[in-house]
Amino acid sequence: MTVTSACADFTLGLKLDAVPKDAINWAKWGMLDCTGVGLAGSKSEIGSIVENYLQFVGGNPQARVLGLGLSTSAPEAAMANGTLCHALDFDDCGGFGHPSTVLLPVIYALADLVKPSGEEALAAYVAGYEVGNAMADRNIFGKIDTSSWELGWHPTGPHGAIGATCTAARLLRLNRQQTMYAMGIAASEACGIHKNFGTMTKPLHGGLAARNGVLAALLAQRGYTADADALGGEQGFLRAFKGPGNYTEELVCGRLGKTFALSRGIAMKWYPGCWSTHRATSSLIDLMRVNSLTAADIESIEVDLRPIPLLHFNPTTGFEGKFSMAFNLAVAALKGWPEIEDYTAARTQEPAIRALMKRVRNVPDPADGSVTLVIITKGGKRFEKNVKHAPGDPTFGLQEERNLAKFRACAAYRLTQNDIANVENCLLNLEQVTDLSELMPVLTAHRK
Amino acid sequence: MTVTSACADFTLGLKLDAVPKDAINWAKWGMLDCTGVGLAGSKSEIGSIVENYLQFVGGNPQARVLGLGLSTSAPEAAMANGTLCHALDFDDCGGFGHPSTVLLPVIYALADLVKPSGEEALAAYVAGYEVGNAMADRNIFGKIDTSSWELGWHPTGPHGAIGATCTAARLLRLNRQQTMYAMGIAASEACGIHKNFGTMTKPLHGGLAARNGVLAALLAQRGYTADADALGGEQGFLRAFKGPGNYTEELVCGRLGKTFALSRGIAMKWYPGCWSTHRATSSLIDLMRVNSLTAADIESIEVDLRPIPLLHFNPTTGFEGKFSMAFNLAVAALKGWPEIEDYTAARTQEPAIRALMKRVRNVPDPADGSVTLVIITKGGKRFEKNVKHAPGDPTFGLQEERNLAKFRACAAYRLTQNDIANVENCLLNLEQVTDLSELMPVLTAHRK
Repeated sequence: MTVTSACADFTLGLKLDAVPKDAINWAKWGMLDCTGVGLAGSKSEIGSIVENYLQFVGGNPQARVLGLGLSTSAPEAAMANGTLCHALDFDDCGGFGHPSTVLLPVIYALADLVKPSGEEALAAYVAGYEVGNAMADRNIFGKIDTSSWELGWHPTGPHGAIGATCTAARLLRLNRQQTMYAMGIAASEACGIHKNFGTMTKPLHGGLAARNGVLAALLAQRGYTADADALGGEQGFLRAFKGPGNYTEELVCGRLGKTFALSRGIAMKWYPGCWSTHRATSSLIDLMRVNSLTAADIESIEVDLRPIPLLHFNPTTGFEGKFSMAFNLAVAALKGWPEIEDYTAARTQEPAIRALMKRVRNVPDPADGSVTLVIITKGGKRFEKNVKHAPGDPTFGLQEERNLAKFRACAAYRLTQNDIANVENCLLNLEQVTDLSELMPVLTAHRK
Repeated sequence: MTVTSACADFTLGLKLDAVPKDAINWAKWGMLDCTGVGLAGSKSEIGSIVENYLQFVGGNPQARVLGLGLSTSAPEAAMANGTLCHALDFDDCGGFGHPSTVLLPVIYALADLVKPSGEEALAAYVAGYEVGNAMADRNIFGKIDTSSWELGWHPTGPHGAIGATCTAARLLRLNRQQTMYAMGIAASEACGIHKNFGTMTKPLHGGLAARNGVLAALLAQRGYTADADALGGEQGFLRAFKGPGNYTEELVCGRLGKTFALSRGIAMKWYPGCWSTHRATSSLIDLMRVNSLTAADIESIEVDLRPIPLLHFNPTTGFEGKFSMAFNLAVAALKGWPEIEDYTAARTQEPAIRALMKRVRNVPDPADGSVTLVIITKGGKRFEKNVKHAPGDPTFGLQEERNLAKFRACAAYRLTQNDIANVENCLLNLEQVTDLSELMPVLTAHRK
C-alpha cells in the first residue's frame, strides 16, 4: 500500500451509509453555506473580472457559474466557482483550510455532465474532504498543517487540489488506476503561496484547487499517466508541501475510513474577514455590548496581531482589510458587526477607522492556544475576555438558524426568495435528490 | 526596488537592440527546434489525449494547436502546445530547465490575438528566458537551481511559470502594475514536482507553466490583483521554491539587463531521452564506433546512474525509459542512436535490451562534474571516455546544420516539405516578420 493507493481505495470504496450521520449533515450545511457566499461573491469585483475572463475564453457549455448566468467548460467552471465562493473570504473553514470552496465547485462543475444523485454528490464531497484533510493534518487531533504554512504554502491550494481530485474521480467514476494517476497529475498542479493573502489571488487558490482536481481527473480519464505514488515517497507531494520530518505516511493514511474528520464539523464564518480574526472580533463585540461601551470610550485594545496568517497591518484595499486584525476590530467597534460591504479600499482609509486602528496594540496570546482581548477605556477601566473558540466554531455544534439566516442574506445578492427556498430544500435534503443537475439552472439563471 | 518590480521593469523595458546578437540567434534556433519537436509530439500518445481533451472542453478559437488542426482559448492552447513540445522530452535545455517548451507556447497562444511582429515575439521570448533564468540560477555561473530540485521541484514548472508570465505580459503590453500582479498570480499558480519524471505528467509541466503565464497575464489585464512582491520577501515565491538561505534577492535581480543568460546558449538535444543521459550515451556511441565494437562485445558498462533526476531503473513504459540511464545506453548500443520511436513500453521489455541493461553497473562520476563511461568487453578489454559536455551542449556553439536536420525530421511528422521550408524561413528570419500570426495556419493546418 502507498499513500496514493490508500487514498484512491478510500475514495472509490467509500459507502455513504458507513459515514457518520453528523458528518453528512456537516457536509450539507457546508455546501449550503458555500453556495450562499459564492452567490454573494459573484456580485463582487472578482465576480466581474471572472465573468469578463469567462466570456473571453468561452468553452463548451458543460457547467454553469454561480450567479453569472453563463456556462463554460468543466475546468473553467470549477476555477470560476471556486474563486467566487472564496471571493469574500466568508466561506467555511475546516479540514485542509477552506474545504467547501474547493470541493463544492468540483461537484457543480461536473453536475451537468454526470447528473449525480444527491447521495453520489455527498459521497464525493466526503471523499474529497477526508483525503484533503489527511494531506493537511499534522497530527491525529486535527490541527491544521503548520509545516505547510511555514514552507510558504496556503494549504487550501495544494492539499485542496488532492481533495478536489478525489471528489472529481468519484463523480466521474474513474477506475483505481485512473484515480491514482489523477492524484499524481494533481500533485504536479498543486499550488498557492501564502504571500498572496489579502489580494484577489487568495480567492483564486480555491478556484485553482478545484480546477486542478477537475483537470487531473479529466486527463486521467483519457489515459494520461503520472507516477503511481506521486503523493508519497522521498520525492513526492507530501515531502514537497510539508517538508521532510513533518509527517509520516502511516499517519496520513491510517485513519482513512476509520474515523471521519468531517465529524468534528466545519466552522461557519460569522464575519467576512480572515478566520484568525474571529475570536478577537467576537470578544470585542461581546465586551462592548455587555459593558455598554461605544467606540468613543476606547483608549486602547490589546490583542495578538497574528502576523501569520495575517500579513496586512496597514491595509489599503478591502482584501487587505480582511487580513488585518486592527481593521476588523475597528469595523466591529464602530459598526457592531463586520459585514460584506465593509471591506472596501475607502473604508480602510476612513478617519474613524484609522483612529481606532491606531489604538490597537500587539500583545501575545496565552500559550494555551486561546485568544485574549483587552479593552482599556478612556476612563481607565480594563475589560478582558479570553476565548478558545470563535462563535462559528463547530465546538458549538451546528447552528442551523444562524447558518440559514446567513445563507439567505448571501443568496439574496442574486436569487429570488423562491429560488432561495428551492436551493435550501435541495441541499438540505440531498439524500432525496435524484439528479443534482436540476439545481444548476436555479443557482445561475436569475441575475438580480 | 523589489524582486517583482525589478523583473517587471526588465520585462517591459527590454529593447531588442540592447540584446546581444548571439542571444537573439539562440532564441530563434530554440523556437525552431521546439516547434519541430512539438509537431512530432503532437503525433504521440500525449497528442491524442490532448486532442481529445481540447475537443471536450472547447473554447473560443483564439489560438491554434501544433499539428492538431484545431483552435481553442489562449490558456488552453498554451497548455496544449507546452505539453506537446515537451511530450517527447526532445526539446531544448537551458536557463530554468526547458525554456522553449514554456515560452514558445505562450507566443503561439497569443499570436492570433495580438499579432506580434517577429521582433516583438523575440523580445517577449528573451524577457521570459532571462526572468525565468533569474529565478532558477543558483549562482552567477548559470548552474541550474539544485536547491529547487532538492525541495522536490522540477524548475521548468515553477520557474518557467514566472518566465512565461513575462513573455505574456510583454506580448499583451501590460502596464507595470499589471505585470507585477501577473507575476504575483503566477507565483500562486507555480507548480510541478520532480516525482512525476518518466510519466506523461512531466511534459504537462511545460504546458502548465505556459498556461499559468497566459492565465496570470489575462487576469491581471482585467484588473485581478496579487501581492505587489509575491516573488520576493520572507513568504514569497523564491523562498517557497528555493528554500531560505539558497538565494539572495540581489543575486536574482542584479544581472537583469546587464548580462544575458541566453548568450550562454541553449542545449539542443541529439537524443529524445533525459538530458542527463546524453553525455554517457554519446560516450558509448563514440567508444563503440572508434573501437568497432558491437553490442555483443560488451561484458559490462560502468556509468553513474544519476538517481536525480533519473528516477527509473526498471522502466516499463517509454516515458520511464527516457529517465533510465541503462535503457538509453542499451538502445544506443544496439541501434547506434536512440530515436523517437525507441521509447515504447514494448522496447523496454525486449530481451536484447534487458540483457544489455543488466550489464550496466553504477560507478560514481568524477568530482569535477564530468561524466566517465567505461566499456569492458567480453575479451577483457577496457575502453574509457570522459566528457564534460554532451554533444548538443552550447559549449560547442550553434550547430546549425544538425539542428536544421533535426527540425526537418521532426516537423515531417505533420508538415509538408513546402510548409517545413516556410516555417524555417519565418522563424530563422524573425526580425523581418511583420505579423507572426500568419505562421499559425502553416503550423497547424496540415495533418499528415
